[in-house]
This record gives sequence, C-alpha cells and structure tokens, in this order.
Amino acid sequence: MLNRLCSYALNIKGIPYKTEWLSFTEVEPKMKELGILPNSGYLMHYTVPTIYDPNTKRVVTESFAIAKYLEEAYPNTPRLVAPGTAGLQAAYAEKVVYPLLQTSFKIFCFPVYQKCCMNDADRKYVRETREKWHGGKALEDIAPKGEALTAACKAFGVQLDEVAKHVAATGSGVVFVGGDAPAHVDTAVAAILRCILKILGEDHELSKTILGHEWAAKHLQAMAKWE
Amino acid sequence: MLNRLCSYALNIKGIPYKTEWLSFTEVEPKMKELGILPNSGYLMHYTVPTIYDPNTKRVVTESFAIAKYLEEAYPNTPRLVAPGTAGLQAAYAEKVVYPLLQTSFKIFCFPVYQKCCMNDADRKYVRETREKWHGGKALEDIAPKGEALTAACKAFGVQLDEVAKHVAATGSGVVFVGGDAPAHVDTAVAAILRCILKILGEDHELSKTILGHEWAAKHLQAMAKWE
Repeated sequence: MLNRLCSYALNIKGIPYKTEWLSFTEVEPKMKELGILPNSGYLMHYTVPTIYDPNTKRVVTESFAIAKYLEEAYPNTPRLVAPGTAGLQAAYAEKVVYPLLQTSFKIFCFPVYQKCCMNDADRKYVRETREKWHGGKALEDIAPKGEALTAACKAFGVQLDEVAKHVAATGSGVVFVGGDAPAHVDTAVAAILRCILKILGEDHELSKTILGHEWAAKHLQAMAKWE
Repeated sequence: MLNRLCSYALNIKGIPYKTEWLSFTEVEPKMKELGILPNSGYLMHYTVPTIYDPNTKRVVTESFAIAKYLEEAYPNTPRLVAPGTAGLQAAYAEKVVYPLLQTSFKIFCFPVYQKCCMNDADRKYVRETREKWHGGKALEDIAPKGEALTAACKAFGVQLDEVAKHVAATGSGVVFVGGDAPAHVDTAVAAILRCILKILGEDHELSKTILGHEWAAKHLQAMAKWE
C-alpha cells in the first residue's frame, strides 16, 4: 500500500516492489489485518504508505519511518536519510513540508472526492471526514475561490520560494534540499507537487503556480526519473 | 571578533584562534576597516562573529557562512555541515533556532545593557537600538514580568521540547540535532542557552527553565568540552 512518496524512495534505492492499491475505506481493515497500531493524535488513525518487506517479514507504516527502515535494511543503496540528517529532516518535514500540504489541502479536497473515490463507500467516507475536519462546511465549499484562491496560490508560491532558498544554501546549481542527491524530504515535496498536478490538472491556478516556479519545475524534472 | 557560537565551531574543529573582543560601538568601524559589506534586511547592519583566516587571508562574517567556510578550508576536521545538510541546517536555523532567540531576546535586553556594555557609548547605542526595535518602549520595560515572564519561559520550554523531539528522531540515546556529533545548529542552540545562563544568572526563571529541561541540560553538558 504505497503512495507516490514511498515509490520515489523505493525507486531511488532500486528496490523492486509490488503495489497494492486500496480504496479509502479499505485502508483501516487492511492495517488492522497487518497488526498495525493506530496513530494517536492524527486526524487519520491509519494512513498509507505502509510496506511489507518479505525479506525481513517486517511491516512498516508512515513515510519517514519507512525511509529510515530502508536505510537500515538496505544500507548499500542510495541514502535518503544520510547520517546526521534524521533530526534535521524530521524538523524540515514538520516546519516546511507539512505547511505546503496545509496550504494546498483545502484546494484539492473536492477534486480528490471527484477523481479518487472508487465507490459509494469511499465517497461517503471522504465527504464525512473532510467536512468534519473543516467545521461542517460542505465538501464543495471547502476550496477557496476567486481572490481567496489566488491568495492561497500566492502563499503556496512563497512557500516554494522558501524551499528554493534552503536549496540555494546548499550550493549553486543544486536542485535538491538534500544537496547533490535527493533526501527523504525531497521525495515528500515532490510527492505533494506531483499529486497536486495530477488531481487538479495542469490548467488549475495552483498547478500553474507550481509549473511556473523556477525551482519547483526543476525539482519535478529532476525527480521524474524515479516516478 | 568571535562569539560563543563560533568559538564552539573552532574548538570542535581543533583550529587554534585568537579572539579580539569588541565593544558594541566598535563593531561597525572594525567591519568597515575589514572591507565587509553591510547586511541588508537585518536589524543590525554589522554583526559578529567575523573571522580573519591568516592562512587564506579571507575575512568571513556570519556564523553559518563561517561554518561552511571552515568545512571547505579545513576538510579534515570534524564536520559541522556534513554533505547534504546545508539546506536542512539553513531551514533549521530559520525555523527552530531563530525562534528560540526571539522568545528570549526581550528577556535579556536590559541585562545585556547592564552587564555587557563597556562604556557610555555602548550604553547609548544599546539603549537606542533596543528601544527602537521595541517600538520606543523604555529598555527597563522590554522584558515581560510576573505572569507574562512565566508564560514566556513556558513557551521557551515548549520550543526546547520541539528540539528534543527532533533529536529523538535521530535515534535513542542521541543528544545532538546532528546525531552522533554536533552540527552547526547544535553550536547555535548551545550558544543561545549558554548566553542566557551567563547574562541572566542561574537563578533567573528562564535559566531555571533551561537547567530543568532534561534534553537542554544534557546538550549543554555534552557541548561543555568545546567551550
């Protein structure tokens, strides 16, 4: 049960894998079947990605935990969590990557419902959870519109500028937050950008913000070989 | 012209140095004499630390730039900016370390004036700049008092908890943000904590917050050998 973030990680490391796609409502029963404990303190108690490694018979859930697990289990593959970076990457995920998701989440809630739900049970689940998280607002009304949408896209662009500034601190000509090679947080940023483009389509104002952003466009291009 | 942050870096790397202490008002003329351009967009146009390296005849100012310079000039010394960490550390400095300074700055403005000014020119300069930065408030009134001080110390403790959480992501038994060895951001955090303890004294409420914080106390102890 992967998502794009985790498939970037496995592709960068050159580890072969088989993906099992789950509909929204299949996640929780599958996780329970695998013996995974629920997340406490999160909106969602069970989330993808989760991997099962037949070599070690280990089940690992949550993308950063998976990245750290893969470093240990497959030490001779390209590193996503280089020595001395786990704490820095945990902070980066929290302070920079998660806010990118927060800014864009409202915008793609309804399109996710329209495009990613596989059946009525999914649609019921996605509508109920998203409406609850947004104080009872109807799913159709969660995304900002007009000037508010433009403002949200501009804020997203400013967040991308921040990432570009961090990348620039690494050296000239560098495109990854991790420097010469992608780090775990690069896979997280690219996964968010790629999902937005896929769910909203390239003509959406937010997609145009991404494709028109010098650093983001370069980053997506550099990550494309691991998709 | 060093500060504690930079002397940590030089001590960790085992590079011998001579410190030239400057009073507040001596900083700007000295920097101009060394041909250093002013910072744009900062409250202070000229800041310590600045190093002059007689081996390369290079003048470098600002602690992160110094750390990166030392990595290049002295590659066979312990690393403070390990490969792939420059962007992550730039972000960490901005999102985690700088907010620690912001929370504590108001508290030690007046004690700095009382304890660190060397002469009347310094006192005039420190009073004028700090009062201007705080909207004209008298230097004596900048620090929160009573319940507001307790709240600020509590907020500082929460920020330390955050750092401890990032450190925990690195592994069990680890004390540095950089993992097994200190990174540049560890020297920055330790410099802030040590300065607070020195300027406010160990009996101050903020100092007690630091000394009573499990992770912070361990971190200061681990950093002590490079002071």
